Amino acid sequence: MYFCFSKFSKNMLRTTTCGALTLQNLGENVTLCGWMQNSRDLGGMTFIDVRDRYGITQLVFNMNDNIALCEAARKLGREFVIKVSGVVVERSNKNLEIPTGEIEIKVTDLELLNASKVPPFMIEDKTDGGDDLRMKYRYLDLRRNPVRNNMVLRHKMAQAVRRYLDDLDFIEVETPVLIKSTPEGARDFVVPSRMNAGEFYALPQSPQTFKQLLMVSGFDRYFQIVKCFRDEDLRADRQPEFTQIDCEMSFIEQEDILNTFEGLIRKLFKEIRNYDLPEVPRMQYADAMRFYGSDKPDTRFEMRFVELNDIVKGKDFPVFDAAELIIGINAENCASYTRKQLDELTEFVKRPQIGATGLIYMRHNEDGSLKSSVDKFYSEEDLKQWSQRMETKPGDLVLLMAGNTDKVRKQLGELRLEMGSRLGFRDKDKFAALWVLDFPLLEWDEESGRYHAMHHPFTSPKPEDIAMLDTQPGEVRANAYDMVVNGTEIGGGSIRIHDRELQALMFKHLGFSKEEAQKQFGFLMEAFEFGAPPHGGIAFGFDRLCSIFAGLDTIRDVIAFPKNNSGRDVMIDTPSLIDDKQMQELKIKTVL
Amino acid sequence: MYFCFSKFSKNMLRTTTCGALTLQNLGENVTLCGWMQNSRDLGGMTFIDVRDRYGITQLVFNMNDNIALCEAARKLGREFVIKVSGVVVERSNKNLEIPTGEIEIKVTDLELLNASKVPPFMIEDKTDGGDDLRMKYRYLDLRRNPVRNNMVLRHKMAQAVRRYLDDLDFIEVETPVLIKSTPEGARDFVVPSRMNAGEFYALPQSPQTFKQLLMVSGFDRYFQIVKCFRDEDLRADRQPEFTQIDCEMSFIEQEDILNTFEGLIRKLFKEIRNYDLPEVPRMQYADAMRFYGSDKPDTRFEMRFVELNDIVKGKDFPVFDAAELIIGINAENCASYTRKQLDELTEFVKRPQIGATGLIYMRHNEDGSLKSSVDKFYSEEDLKQWSQRMETKPGDLVLLMAGNTDKVRKQLGELRLEMGSRLGFRDKDKFAALWVLDFPLLEWDEESGRYHAMHHPFTSPKPEDIAMLDTQPGEVRANAYDMVVNGTEIGGGSIRIHDRELQALMFKHLGFSKEEAQKQFGFLMEAFEFGAPPHGGIAFGFDRLCSIFAGLDTIRDVIAFPKNNSGRDVMIDTPSLIDDKQMQELKIKTVL
Repeated sequence: MYFCFSKFSKNMLRTTTCGALTLQNLGENVTLCGWMQNSRDLGGMTFIDVRDRYGITQLVFNMNDNIALCEAARKLGREFVIKVSGVVVERSNKNLEIPTGEIEIKVTDLELLNASKVPPFMIEDKTDGGDDLRMKYRYLDLRRNPVRNNMVLRHKMAQAVRRYLDDLDFIEVETPVLIKSTPEGARDFVVPSRMNAGEFYALPQSPQTFKQLLMVSGFDRYFQIVKCFRDEDLRADRQPEFTQIDCEMSFIEQEDILNTFEGLIRKLFKEIRNYDLPEVPRMQYADAMRFYGSDKPDTRFEMRFVELNDIVKGKDFPVFDAAELIIGINAENCASYTRKQLDELTEFVKRPQIGATGLIYMRHNEDGSLKSSVDKFYSEEDLKQWSQRMETKPGDLVLLMAGNTDKVRKQLGELRLEMGSRLGFRDKDKFAALWVLDFPLLEWDEESGRYHAMHHPFTSPKPEDIAMLDTQPGEVRANAYDMVVNGTEIGGGSIRIHDRELQALMFKHLGFSKEEAQKQFGFLMEAFEFGAPPHGGIAFGFDRLCSIFAGLDTIRDVIAFPKNNSGRDVMIDTPSLIDDKQMQELKIKTVL
Repeated sequence: MYFCFSKFSKNMLRTTTCGALTLQNLGENVTLCGWMQNSRDLGGMTFIDVRDRYGITQLVFNMNDNIALCEAARKLGREFVIKVSGVVVERSNKNLEIPTGEIEIKVTDLELLNASKVPPFMIEDKTDGGDDLRMKYRYLDLRRNPVRNNMVLRHKMAQAVRRYLDDLDFIEVETPVLIKSTPEGARDFVVPSRMNAGEFYALPQSPQTFKQLLMVSGFDRYFQIVKCFRDEDLRADRQPEFTQIDCEMSFIEQEDILNTFEGLIRKLFKEIRNYDLPEVPRMQYADAMRFYGSDKPDTRFEMRFVELNDIVKGKDFPVFDAAELIIGINAENCASYTRKQLDELTEFVKRPQIGATGLIYMRHNEDGSLKSSVDKFYSEEDLKQWSQRMETKPGDLVLLMAGNTDKVRKQLGELRLEMGSRLGFRDKDKFAALWVLDFPLLEWDEESGRYHAMHHPFTSPKPEDIAMLDTQPGEVRANAYDMVVNGTEIGGGSIRIHDRELQALMFKHLGFSKEEAQKQFGFLMEAFEFGAPPHGGIAFGFDRLCSIFAGLDTIRDVIAFPKNNSGRDVMIDTPSLIDDKQMQELKIKTVL
């Protein structure tokens, strides 16, 4: 993926870039700057590839023309920085893979701008550097085309997002980074205040309350591409600082948000990937759980769950008889799976991360016969019922799991994804988006023994469900929605509460005392008393969105300077100790 | 300044905005949402102005048509949030000041979306709210047109900056916010690390080292509109968090930076203010000091300093004889200043902030006679020399000051600005930009008794001056430049060092031990050994730039949620105490 530097303005050190010259430029005198990618000595000739962000251009030096120049060229090491002038000539040995592959520069002047030590790994699309080395020398890793291209993609996406929202009269407003700590939700990073000793700022986990205040202010449509912070133990692919596309709208209903931001995502796919994303289907949270065992189903393939309780129970198979739910998926054209392959799948679901006790299967053989792993309990007639329910055809394989409803759905969801991968349904260049709607308002937290807000405490309940807040809080649905792409949640939001009484009621149900609610969110509840408009919004995980567009598995690769799993930047070596003087000024002490 | 909401897409709650309807829409059925701005009862009619971000529309209710509706309308208080439907009709009493002033809505439906307490100050362009009240209820202050318009201006400027740089193939890269603390320069805000107890991150004062690393990575052209942080005692108009337009380029010389960013500023003036900023003049730092007594002269007017040592010394006037430098300005057409006015000017320069001991003047009267405040020492012949040197004409007033060179220049510089203001030369709608070039590399710091980097330690010295580093460090000039608009520094930058040896030499001259330099900036110096290209950049203070474009004196008015001079956000009440549990997790303790 090379870059078109169309508007390059000639400057003091160079007249063009290493990605620009073609047969159109034959005979021109040019000056280029860049890095020595590699060199080849062929008898009296030396060929050098010089590289910059825009491409690669071949330089040629001839012993017969200028011995000194040629010898200077031969002394250049990998990654030396040079400035060369010369004439554009046609290449005899053309490389049609790159835009500059039909020309070379017959060099008349060579200036060494900077030397380089031998880099610790190859600066090539496929490098020999291990992860640790590449993180320590991130500035060298960023020289590699695939890594830099991720940053270019991210840049293009950010500009495209802003253009789309600006066109719809959204206003980008910067909200503060030094804000107030709130114990609710994930852990805050805090910043000791020197001028207010003993007190702390917090870094925002999101600009949630500020964007709601902007709605109270009548900003009507707000957005921001903004850094957020969360001091969590880092699982794979979490970063302590991450970026959100944060948006809020007033005088709208859920439908307006869905339409506006579906438009954004489809536009991005078209503009960045030239991909025509169809209209985004919508699914209830409850259905997502029922059919895919996940609130973020990968809908690049179907393979929906089918419930079998009514036809498999009561046949003396103790596993099924004891189970709350028996569900299956039809893995089409997999009847030929070998014993070994089926054992692998059983091992897969038995892994501690998944935790199932076993897997039942039924082959619908090519000859039409049905064969299950529990033939002891089920007759051919029974299996025919299975086949009908699962809509199998000859050649298909049914995989069944049983257990507690929530657990077995999650487990079969994992197996479904595994089968999708095995069957090649999870192509990174194919995209399936989905709106998941009507999330529960609250979720039970085992640890604290109380309900937590599933989205956040500012999400509005469905009016028709408010009455259940006291009796069946877990059943109350929220005006909350997620957008899912390829099985990953890329964004989520809700219609907010804009009424002080309802907000106070929510805090009460979340276990806040009146005093706590007032201390932490009094300013917001007070704001609601001065004419807050109905409003709602959404936030997209920008790192995740970029990684999906780049076809990557991890967000780390779309972040210029990421931190490792211990929250360290190993390149600059931080966090680190600070001066005693600074600790004294801040009036804090470390207690290890 | 009303807003054109051209692409408004009808949504669930409204069909248009309060700023959109004109005679073109007569007879249309519309639905609007907004805030009750004011109401007037005129006998059987009630008129209500409803306001949103886009404008104001008049609603009319008629007792004869619908008593209940009209009575409901009469109950609405200021800032109540309403939704109304009705027909667009022509107004009898037109208001041609606003785009919607020729129509009104004959309301058929009124829905109260939210009530409002009486706001603590008037939501009007001119409000009765004091500063403290408006900060506490910032979300209400932001409802006022002038305040919100500042945010809209800021939004437009940010988008215009990005478009300009994106068009020139600059890549926007997000650099980390959790970085490493360095004792050099201003004080860092720090963030205790929970996962690495006893260690701290710092918030960036600028992304300086990261953008230089991106140049080492070959990014070629980088920019970012980015939050920066500085834990300084807040003088008026400083904020602990502020925003920079941060830029860096490779393979360039100073001339390239000046051209590229002069283009940016001129484009912004054209696009945002429709102002044709002429080509930006350039001035040496030394000349700026000599002619204006400031490295950021206000060049909306001339009134340059004139040096008079050779003609005023040796006449037995002890003040001038003892002075290192005697300089004057010609305040044209001010000979008629009264004794009282001249006393005011003397008081002005004697204020402790300026600290001069006195002011000498000479009137060039309309009749051609010359009259000074030191006639005792100077003959008419002497004064004629003054007049010639100062290029006075009848009606002009010469103001002279004397003293130590650096001090008297600063003092006369303040007087010059005062005269400029008095004479109306400092019009906020007139703009004069200036490049100030060739800043000194180092400046002497009395407190620490050593030289500091005037710009920052990564700024390159002029090659021809490097030899003076040992002998006359204060004389060494840097490849550093500032852009000044109307006497305010709006941006500054430099060509950087890209060579390890020179960078190490700089650290030595700044009083770093080898170990300190290695510990703090080892990663950067190491990066320079792997083929760093020549590079340089610039950063603009985005808050300041916006305030100048908005014609404001303070940056606070272009920040949505600013902090006060104690670094507090009085609206959300932060900084604040945090939970003991959180302190324990962070392994820190407050020592008051």
